[in-house]
Amino acid sequence: MRRTIKELADFLSCEFEGDALTPVSGVASAASARPEDLIYVESSRHLEGASASPARCVVVGPGLSLRGKAVLRAANPKFAFARAAEWLLPAAPIAQGIHPTAVIAPSAQIAEGVGVGPFAVIEEDVQVGAATQIGAYCFLGKGTWLGAGCRLYPRVTIYSGVRLGNYVVVHSGAVLGADGFGYVAHAGKRWKFPQVGSVQIHDEVEIGANTTIDRGSLDQTEIGSGTKLDNLVHVAHNVSIGENTVIAAQTGISGSVVVGKNVAFGGQAGIADHCVIEDDSAIGAQAGVLPGKTVRKGQMVWGTPARDLDKFKEQYARLTRLPKLEEKVKNLENRVIHGLITGIDH
Amino acid sequence: MRRTIKELADFLSCEFEGDALTPVSGVASAASARPEDLIYVESSRHLEGASASPARCVVVGPGLSLRGKAVLRAANPKFAFARAAEWLLPAAPIAQGIHPTAVIAPSAQIAEGVGVGPFAVIEEDVQVGAATQIGAYCFLGKGTWLGAGCRLYPRVTIYSGVRLGNYVVVHSGAVLGADGFGYVAHAGKRWKFPQVGSVQIHDEVEIGANTTIDRGSLDQTEIGSGTKLDNLVHVAHNVSIGENTVIAAQTGISGSVVVGKNVAFGGQAGIADHCVIEDDSAIGAQAGVLPGKTVRKGQMVWGTPARDLDKFKEQYARLTRLPKLEEKVKNLENRVIHGLITGIDH
Amino acid sequence: MRRTIKELADFLSCEFEGDALTPVSGVASAASARPEDLIYVESSRHLEGASASPARCVVVGPGLSLRGKAVLRAANPKFAFARAAEWLLPAAPIAQGIHPTAVIAPSAQIAEGVGVGPFAVIEEDVQVGAATQIGAYCFLGKGTWLGAGCRLYPRVTIYSGVRLGNYVVVHSGAVLGADGFGYVAHAGKRWKFPQVGSVQIHDEVEIGANTTIDRGSLDQTEIGSGTKLDNLVHVAHNVSIGENTVIAAQTGISGSVVVGKNVAFGGQAGIADHCVIEDDSAIGAQAGVLPGKTVRKGQMVWGTPARDLDKFKEQYARLTRLPKLEEKVKNLENRVIHGLITGIDH
Repeated sequence: MRRTIKELADFLSCEFEGDALTPVSGVASAASARPEDLIYVESSRHLEGASASPARCVVVGPGLSLRGKAVLRAANPKFAFARAAEWLLPAAPIAQGIHPTAVIAPSAQIAEGVGVGPFAVIEEDVQVGAATQIGAYCFLGKGTWLGAGCRLYPRVTIYSGVRLGNYVVVHSGAVLGADGFGYVAHAGKRWKFPQVGSVQIHDEVEIGANTTIDRGSLDQTEIGSGTKLDNLVHVAHNVSIGENTVIAAQTGISGSVVVGKNVAFGGQAGIADHCVIEDDSAIGAQAGVLPGKTVRKGQMVWGTPARDLDKFKEQYARLTRLPKLEEKVKNLENRVIHGLITGIDH
Repeated sequence: MRRTIKELADFLSCEFEGDALTPVSGVASAASARPEDLIYVESSRHLEGASASPARCVVVGPGLSLRGKAVLRAANPKFAFARAAEWLLPAAPIAQGIHPTAVIAPSAQIAEGVGVGPFAVIEEDVQVGAATQIGAYCFLGKGTWLGAGCRLYPRVTIYSGVRLGNYVVVHSGAVLGADGFGYVAHAGKRWKFPQVGSVQIHDEVEIGANTTIDRGSLDQTEIGSGTKLDNLVHVAHNVSIGENTVIAAQTGISGSVVVGKNVAFGGQAGIADHCVIEDDSAIGAQAGVLPGKTVRKGQMVWGTPARDLDKFKEQYARLTRLPKLEEKVKNLENRVIHGLITGIDH
Repeated sequence: MRRTIKELADFLSCEFEGDALTPVSGVASAASARPEDLIYVESSRHLEGASASPARCVVVGPGLSLRGKAVLRAANPKFAFARAAEWLLPAAPIAQGIHPTAVIAPSAQIAEGVGVGPFAVIEEDVQVGAATQIGAYCFLGKGTWLGAGCRLYPRVTIYSGVRLGNYVVVHSGAVLGADGFGYVAHAGKRWKFPQVGSVQIHDEVEIGANTTIDRGSLDQTEIGSGTKLDNLVHVAHNVSIGENTVIAAQTGISGSVVVGKNVAFGGQAGIADHCVIEDDSAIGAQAGVLPGKTVRKGQMVWGTPARDLDKFKEQYARLTRLPKLEEKVKNLENRVIHGLITGIDH
């Protein structure tokens, strides 16, 4: 879509400087931009790159100036840039209309404006809300429930009974509602513990490619509004995750863990079963939280076993000082036990 | 299915107390149960929750009593509960009959009562045993062999020549039989080492969502009866896993590793190539076993490099005592080198 | 294919000893070989096994002799074996011809000899090069571009605009071009940062099962020629990987990381954002490289935080010596503070 900087400023409710008719039709990084691409600058150290860019229009933060460019001024330039990008480059539809190859049960209720791609399978008693888009090969098991405005990229599997809110985005290969990993040991074998609960995904959640979210065993697995999961994340049965939490790739959350709001997980972190991860905390990449532990509100943890980040850093510093400590002890031994006075000072 | 407690007691071969006609039609946790749901209590600390639950029928362990409830007595109440759940809530069929959209090669041999879902592809010379269910989008490559009573959820890929025993369960997105990661370095490039072996999955194995099991390079990759793999697990080429082993999510097992029986892997563990993990051992979550190492029968290991759990704990305790050790050395230096007598006692 | 050892020697440009008509029709390990299988021996400790094998023909390295076998002599016997395997057992076709169930947009340009399997979806403006094979359920989004001789196993998803070079191999479940994990925090919520870049995969790359490679946010994600990725690997947005690098299973590479040529990643390694991993370096299994760090050319690192392998080993050795250090300090205290002379010597 081609806009002028004036239209963009109106859309973003921000001020602009320069020719009101400066055209903007895309977004880019400073290095790869063409003249009509919008770029953004958050700090003065990126001004030089922006200045050298062919882009004619730049979103800048407060107090920054940029000669020879049309400028949009925003308190949070990266956010303004993201909103502008959404407006200028609306997401391409995943599916439009109902593809004739889709297999849809007669009892499924498909709202207005829903798109269903080739080879999708929609089983009995499924409900799909308005304007939701369902990509090729998506499988909606019996009784699943999707809200409005969801985007399921090709090849998403949703087992029976799973519920998604509105504006949920699910990437290719994600599996929602598979059996949790629960067994009872008896007579030398493992017997499946019932995995008959469900999954509830709330509004505006985004789920990455090949991520798996298991159904609850007796109750449900739940993911709060606005929470974002990266690729290859594992969420086990009965986990409850609050709102606006972010979980980086390859992190695993074990059974019955309770995660609060606004938590940030680094990649490849592992949370053992029955932990409580309170609001606003941060779990470092590759950290391992032991079974049943609590990470307190606002706490940052790292390492395995996960501990306070400051404690980890201090321990690591002491570990790197061990050579010096060993040497000190050797010196003391030389003096005390062997009666030597060495010349080593420290 | 609706049963009486008397029928349930007969099925489980256990005693009951209370009204023989008490109806039971489902299973639940104490907190979410409705009156006809069965619940279970393993220890006295869960008695209060069970007592307050609307559930009328409870499986209890020996020596526990519960007023006002119909009670089933079992030596292993969780196991009895699991068996009851299986009887009351038989798994919904994944596929019934042969869906007309499935593409099945004329030479494939499909036994009686097999279900094949929409868009499944079954190539030449495949054999499928009685009552096996094959979900939508399942791909059975040339010459694959499935036993009886298997359940393949939608979207399982099985490369050519892979063999599954009876009652194997495979969840969505699993890939069985892809090429192992084996290359020969030559002249600055990597050339594929032949990956022409196969995969043998024995009876009653369960394989989680998006798990990958590679084919052997020259020989085969093998998973023993009753072994359970969680989601996003990686099993490399030529690995051999024994019976009744459990492998939690995101664990990776490298090429040519030999794993025994009844081994328990925590999540995100990593086993380097050519290790031997003997029977009844336990690999802690996120542990990393170095190439070629042996974990002995019954041993529990943790950490990277993986070591005996007790050793890990001791080392970690010493690490947390380093501040005190550093202080002691400083005191000694003050006395011995600087001639100071500090008042610090410890 | 059935060949003589003479033909094989000609193909490999190497010498042979023994009956020129010795037939060879397959490859195997020494233990499982049948008489017509080729086996190989790299070092003298494998001579005994080779000697006992039913295989009649063996590739051996320089200076090794093997009585009673027809022998092919090669400087790199494993490489010669791999090339022989490729010649004797050409990879079975993934798809031949265009399957009638495939959904192909009229604007797609499909070259000569391309195979397209059942239920494949090829969207508008896709280009597919000569002799490329596209398995069942493969999804090629709008405007994707595939070179010649590629092999896409069943169930590969390629989002719009992704470009693959020639002879690229992609295994089942891989997802190329999904949105990167980039959000802007604003007013307590996470807003999607534009993920409008692309992915460029160069020639002869191999991508493992269920691996995910995200598209660039504004620029592109790029994987150099000859690089090999194992299963369940995660490559984030804007990552650039050089040529002939190998990445073992379950490794994750965060946003904007730059990886050089000939780098070797162990399994489950994690690279935080904006790192630089220079040519010829090696990242140990489960290592964690902190944000923005550089691993230098040829360096080997291990542990979290990742450090030089030698440093890691030295620190670990010191950690295991802590009990002795604690004891030394206790002895010194006994002497200096308590005036005791213990008999302990060390």
